[in-house]
Amino acid sequence: MSAIADFSTYKVISPIRSALEDDTQVTVLWLDGRTSPYHLLWLRDNCPCSRCVYSVTREQVVEILDIPEDIQAARVTLTDDGNLDILWQDGHASTYDAGWLRAHAYDEESLAERERLKPKKRLWGSSLAVPAFHYTDVMADDAALLAWLLAVRDTGLSLIHGVPTESGALVPVAKRISFIRESNFGTLFDVQSKVDADSNAYTAFNLPLHTDLPTRELQPGLQFLHCLVNDARGGSSTFVDGFKLAEVLREEDPQSFEILTTLPIEFRNRGRSSDYRYQAPIIALGENQEVTEIRMANFLRGPFSTLPATMPLLYRAYRRFITLTRDVRFRYRQRLEAGQLWCFDNRRALHARDEFDPASGARHFQGCYVDRDELHSRIRVLQR
Amino acid sequence: MSAIADFSTYKVISPIRSALEDDTQVTVLWLDGRTSPYHLLWLRDNCPCSRCVYSVTREQVVEILDIPEDIQAARVTLTDDGNLDILWQDGHASTYDAGWLRAHAYDEESLAERERLKPKKRLWGSSLAVPAFHYTDVMADDAALLAWLLAVRDTGLSLIHGVPTESGALVPVAKRISFIRESNFGTLFDVQSKVDADSNAYTAFNLPLHTDLPTRELQPGLQFLHCLVNDARGGSSTFVDGFKLAEVLREEDPQSFEILTTLPIEFRNRGRSSDYRYQAPIIALGENQEVTEIRMANFLRGPFSTLPATMPLLYRAYRRFITLTRDVRFRYRQRLEAGQLWCFDNRRALHARDEFDPASGARHFQGCYVDRDELHSRIRVLQR
Repeated sequence: MSAIADFSTYKVISPIRSALEDDTQVTVLWLDGRTSPYHLLWLRDNCPCSRCVYSVTREQVVEILDIPEDIQAARVTLTDDGNLDILWQDGHASTYDAGWLRAHAYDEESLAERERLKPKKRLWGSSLAVPAFHYTDVMADDAALLAWLLAVRDTGLSLIHGVPTESGALVPVAKRISFIRESNFGTLFDVQSKVDADSNAYTAFNLPLHTDLPTRELQPGLQFLHCLVNDARGGSSTFVDGFKLAEVLREEDPQSFEILTTLPIEFRNRGRSSDYRYQAPIIALGENQEVTEIRMANFLRGPFSTLPATMPLLYRAYRRFITLTRDVRFRYRQRLEAGQLWCFDNRRALHARDEFDPASGARHFQGCYVDRDELHSRIRVLQR
Repeated sequence: MSAIADFSTYKVISPIRSALEDDTQVTVLWLDGRTSPYHLLWLRDNCPCSRCVYSVTREQVVEILDIPEDIQAARVTLTDDGNLDILWQDGHASTYDAGWLRAHAYDEESLAERERLKPKKRLWGSSLAVPAFHYTDVMADDAALLAWLLAVRDTGLSLIHGVPTESGALVPVAKRISFIRESNFGTLFDVQSKVDADSNAYTAFNLPLHTDLPTRELQPGLQFLHCLVNDARGGSSTFVDGFKLAEVLREEDPQSFEILTTLPIEFRNRGRSSDYRYQAPIIALGENQEVTEIRMANFLRGPFSTLPATMPLLYRAYRRFITLTRDVRFRYRQRLEAGQLWCFDNRRALHARDEFDPASGARHFQGCYVDRDELHSRIRVLQR
């Protein structure tokens, strides 16, 4: 009988010194002094035995509603190998791995500790040393792959050198993470100047700093942009760290920050066969008020719609944000050459393209998307 | 010069009677008595002329930051055909279509009116008459297609009869909407009992009411489940309207509703080559506190993690919600037969499967996902 309903293993950070029970919980005292209460219902809910969890999938096959709300333990003991044993009054028996218990403790200190251990974003400006990797390494070596993916997760921008300059060569790179996210622009999109453009991206215009597909409920997480040819004059890439801009705005103009984190803005992608629209604030915040996403593309923005008294405040906030995107302190600029590939967090690193002259030479980029879910899943598997 | 930067056209609900300007706004008085203020910056921002908007893509090519914040109008007039003309002090000229202006008015009454006109969800229980359609109609007839898609949007559950019982036959049905959303389980997934199951879905177990892939940031919007063979004993489908359950909970137990709309719960999909996790509340609310999504699969749930004082409240709320999913008043039950296909809003209509006996006969379903964005885009295009 396994003591963990999980594919991971959990190191014993500190052994259990003792376990005290009362009518509602078991309180575990750890050798390092921490005290962790576990409610009886929580313990019964997390019983890892093979009657509660299907061993092949490690998924629960009972529902907690089938356990009486006032369940009681008949006996709580420590096993010889330091795990926690509970014999329940109805005869069911549960064993909990000490490492697993500690990893899932929900006393205040343990929750705060897990919060502190979450990966931190590295904010950047114009002087960024872009994390750079080589194609043959990330394709062949899982350690190089992991290093690259951690850079994408934490910095939000990366460069890969030495990618073959054939059409579709970015696909195997993206598939080192997972499958590609399709959109109405296809699985791969070709960024070239087109006469019948269905987006300003497919013109030779300057494209101001933006995220791709803000018109979707879930903006694509990672964007790959692979340069096959770049012989045209102009067309340099610029990136800004949208999370950095948001923090600057939060500090310098809290009222505008409040507006951009709460007022939904509509973005629209309209074509002959599609009509995408989505409304959300430009800056999204997580549970702890941390910035989790920027949603921004001026050329896809619908007319602002908010009460007349709020409209001037919204324009003021929006102009402030665009002012920040134009501030040279934050703009990282580089011309992508043939065989290079940007991979960036599309919901964080706003990207722009200078106007280029299609008559001066060929310019052909290919792009695709992979979502954050797939990035995080891949990192977890590589870190197992 | 077009007066609309849009692919849509806008009916003139009421003509403009007069337009009054001051230093900050133009106030339009409509013949039906409504008064709509438009700030000068808003009007300049929405100038539809071919210097401001690229006519091929209908996307803006200027940014409002390039317009002075204190822009002034030199002359505001009504045109002979009832539109609004503005000559700006810098010489730029803008014409606004009266129907477009009314459709984008942001006076209090207009905003409230647009809110009222949004499509309403039809909540349901066990006595639901499932919106049913025929394969040949939805494949051949755009009016039938639209009727089906509106049912999916508003009721969240639909049935299609007469689908060929060949593998992959659901693909052209899904593609009547758009491309299929891929996941780590593939583009199409085969729901059959498997020895090496990587989810309890691929066993013969009873699966309690759930949404698919709550382990992803964006749960799939629509789910298609196509029955090729159903000769095994058992395995009936059950659906509940998760939005209905949430409203019952909001009414009967506001404290539990508050907990399930605010406390993030972790869901996990773990396999040999993937490790998906996502944390979010079970009930998601929109801007106006309306229910927009249910996220729920007991067998994919991670251990609850919240402060000890909150844990009993969370279990109480969670048990209440599961109690509601088991209440026969809300459960719609039907056995899917070969050639039938469910299409439902995976983020609203929780679905369950009774245990079946794989020894008693063959059972083979195929499924796939399409997101809400694609549904809404398709509906808009069909309604143009």
